[in-house]
Amino acid sequence: MFISFEGIDGSGKSTQARRLAQALNARGTETLLTREPGGSEGAEQIRRLLVEGRGERWSPETELLLFTAARRDHVERLIRPGLDRGAWIVTDRFADSSRVYQGVARADLRHLVEELHRLTICIEPDRTFLIDIDPTVALARGQARGGAEDRFEGLGLDFQHRLRAGFLALAAECPDRIRIIDGRGSEDEIAARVLEALE
Amino acid sequence: MFISFEGIDGSGKSTQARRLAQALNARGTETLLTREPGGSEGAEQIRRLLVEGRGERWSPETELLLFTAARRDHVERLIRPGLDRGAWIVTDRFADSSRVYQGVARADLRHLVEELHRLTICIEPDRTFLIDIDPTVALARGQARGGAEDRFEGLGLDFQHRLRAGFLALAAECPDRIRIIDGRGSEDEIAARVLEALE
Repeated sequence: MFISFEGIDGSGKSTQARRLAQALNARGTETLLTREPGGSEGAEQIRRLLVEGRGERWSPETELLLFTAARRDHVERLIRPGLDRGAWIVTDRFADSSRVYQGVARADLRHLVEELHRLTICIEPDRTFLIDIDPTVALARGQARGGAEDRFEGLGLDFQHRLRAGFLALAAECPDRIRIIDGRGSEDEIAARVLEALE
Repeated sequence: MFISFEGIDGSGKSTQARRLAQALNARGTETLLTREPGGSEGAEQIRRLLVEGRGERWSPETELLLFTAARRDHVERLIRPGLDRGAWIVTDRFADSSRVYQGVARADLRHLVEELHRLTICIEPDRTFLIDIDPTVALARGQARGGAEDRFEGLGLDFQHRLRAGFLALAAECPDRIRIIDGRGSEDEIAARVLEALE
């Protein structure tokens, strides 16, 4: 079982991915918690190029190629081997982030995203939880976190609104795979919603 | 005019690219000398991931995506702007290196190389000089140079033989664009052959 969490920056999806992996491991299902960009040694090296620095550091096309390179490494070295030995995978972001960040919000590259996915990635999660939240709340939370990994937050509130709309449109395209989780409320409340949606 | 130099590691193409750019600038043709992977600020950062470390650090597919990302940045930020203002570009390696390194010598990915090129690069040099030399000579030269950028030399002599065969096959595919230059002899002799082939 391959599960991804998606959402805008500061939506709480990393916390929820961790909580779901813990809950699954606690009930005896071996579950690997991972993230994108990154998740494997090489992909984490590519991550630094992507999440730090100025927003305009890369064009949307170059950025998409770097995300795809990182994803390929992640799939080859962690996701596929994990699934092959029967583990569950819970990842904080996967290909839907490219569909929305590079495919909709940064540029109109949805066709290119799908072509690169078809050529080099292929695998899709069995289930995706989209943690949906107001961009104003999420951006404040992300900025409060601080740190150097703020390249996308640096693109501003309008960008986060385009992301949210993009994720909701994608969820409407793929209703069987993508479940929208209300991101308001306490961590416990949201974690309960995720578990309920998974059953 | 967009000119590339290609060849196996240690073939002398970097020296010849520099000499041609100097000769063109000396005769009053503004010429930018550049290289791959790299040539622009972002692409040089990607370069370090590609040319250092163990040969098996990346799969051929991930490696190809990283080369393509670096090439996209190089084309957007240096090659296209240079050509648009009327400068000549002389580059030490371009897309033919991916066609041969990832497309033939490391793996059988020629189709994927061409698809990624079509989707994200498009531009092709007007003229390519393939500096052809015996891999045994070239490998000794490359290893004598030392330095950390020896990831591909580390793949061994058989790999360099596959590269040479791949480059010669590519030159046979594209006889109008790719000119084979005999890489034996002094730097001056080879530079004279390049200039003669360019006229």
